[in-house]
This record gives sequence, structure tokens and C-alpha cells, in this order.
Amino acid sequence: MADAVNTDETRELIASNKVEGTAVYDLEGERLGTITNFMVDKRSGKAEYAVMQFGGFLGIGADHYPVPWSMLTYNTDHGGYVVDLDKDVLNDAPRYADNDEPDYNADYNRQVYSYYGVTY
Amino acid sequence: MADAVNTDETRELIASNKVEGTAVYDLEGERLGTITNFMVDKRSGKAEYAVMQFGGFLGIGADHYPVPWSMLTYNTDHGGYVVDLDKDVLNDAPRYADNDEPDYNADYNRQVYSYYGVTY
Repeated sequence: MADAVNTDETRELIASNKVEGTAVYDLEGERLGTITNFMVDKRSGKAEYAVMQFGGFLGIGADHYPVPWSMLTYNTDHGGYVVDLDKDVLNDAPRYADNDEPDYNADYNRQVYSYYGVTY
Repeated sequence: MADAVNTDETRELIASNKVEGTAVYDLEGERLGTITNFMVDKRSGKAEYAVMQFGGFLGIGADHYPVPWSMLTYNTDHGGYVVDLDKDVLNDAPRYADNDEPDYNADYNRQVYSYYGVTY
């Protein structure tokens, strides 16, 4: 089974606990960081955010950055996600410390999506 | 923040790693088991299956049961998911052992969804 060709490329599935830890790359193929977890709508099961960490890369420690899921593109070459983000954008991006997860209420959602210029 | 009223009930979010471990109840409110992880579409981020375990309850050990996500209803009273499943249905349901995760290819998806009579 493990070597079977997946003929259903448009709906390739991955286990949630494997998304956690998946690498994220920028448009040039540089590794930016990893997805630590992701925020899903309890009811629909739709991922709304990838929560990323950029350990060391930006010199910003272990903060968690929620990034709208729609900004991520799955890249089969990398076996990871590609996102169009650079350091300047991340400098002021919404983030939170470990154990300080925000409420993800309507206000917070609007704040994050508007920061990245993405429609909520 | 933690006590703030969430005014966005239709899009209440939960961290992926908190879904893992969430209890699942039957229609009578009996605890059936837990969601061990869930299978998401790599690209869209949409959850397609909750993978459940029924430790002891059915005398079937630690097997993993993929159940179409659309069969789950989030219940705020329980703080968990409710699913209309009974033992008879689960006796013959598709399952796999630890470390034997199937490919989740088109054939497998059809098999599981058709077992539960859910449109894929």
C-alpha cells in the first residue's frame, strides 16, 4: 500500500499530526520554518490558519504566527508548504508566545486576515 | 482573553492538536471513544475523516477507524463531537492497526464513504 501510486492527486490526504511539524518554504525555496499546529473550524473541519514558528531564522525566538491557510500552497517537490512571506512582513506580523494562545474571536480573525491582506 | 465571549459562534476555531484527543459521544450522550487524529486535504486544508479509537468499549483493541468528518456534529454541551454510530455498525467498519495507516487513495475513500452511506 505504501508504494501505491496515489491517483487522487486533487484530494491527497495527510494526517493532522503530520501537518504539525511540516516545513514551510518561501518562494525561493528557502526553508522558513515549520507548522506547529493549525486552527480548524470546529464544525466544518476547515483549516483557517497554519500556525508557524520560525525558530532562529528571524531571531524572534519561539513565537507562534497564525497565517491564513489560503496563503499556503502545497508543493510536492518540497514535500511541504510554500508561502509568499518575507522577513519584513513577518517583523510586524501578529504573533503570540507559547501558552498564550489568543481567543481567535471575530476581532482577532479580522486583525490577522487584514494584516496579510486576505479576505476572511 | 480566555473568558471573553466568543461572538463568532459559526466559526469557532480549535487547534489541530486539541482535536486530537477530543471525546466522541453517541446520540444518547454515551462516550464512544476519542479522535486520535484527522485526515485533511493537503491543499484545501479540509478535514475529510476523523480517525477514532474506541479503547475497550467494543473489545476491539486499539484499531483506528476513519469516519467521514461530515458524520460528526460538534456539541457545545459535551465539548466534544457527537456521531450517530452504534456497535453493530462499527463491528464491520473499515479500520486499521497502529502503524498500518492505509493510503487513503480514491479506492479506499470510496470504500469508507460507501460503508457509511455518505457521499464522497
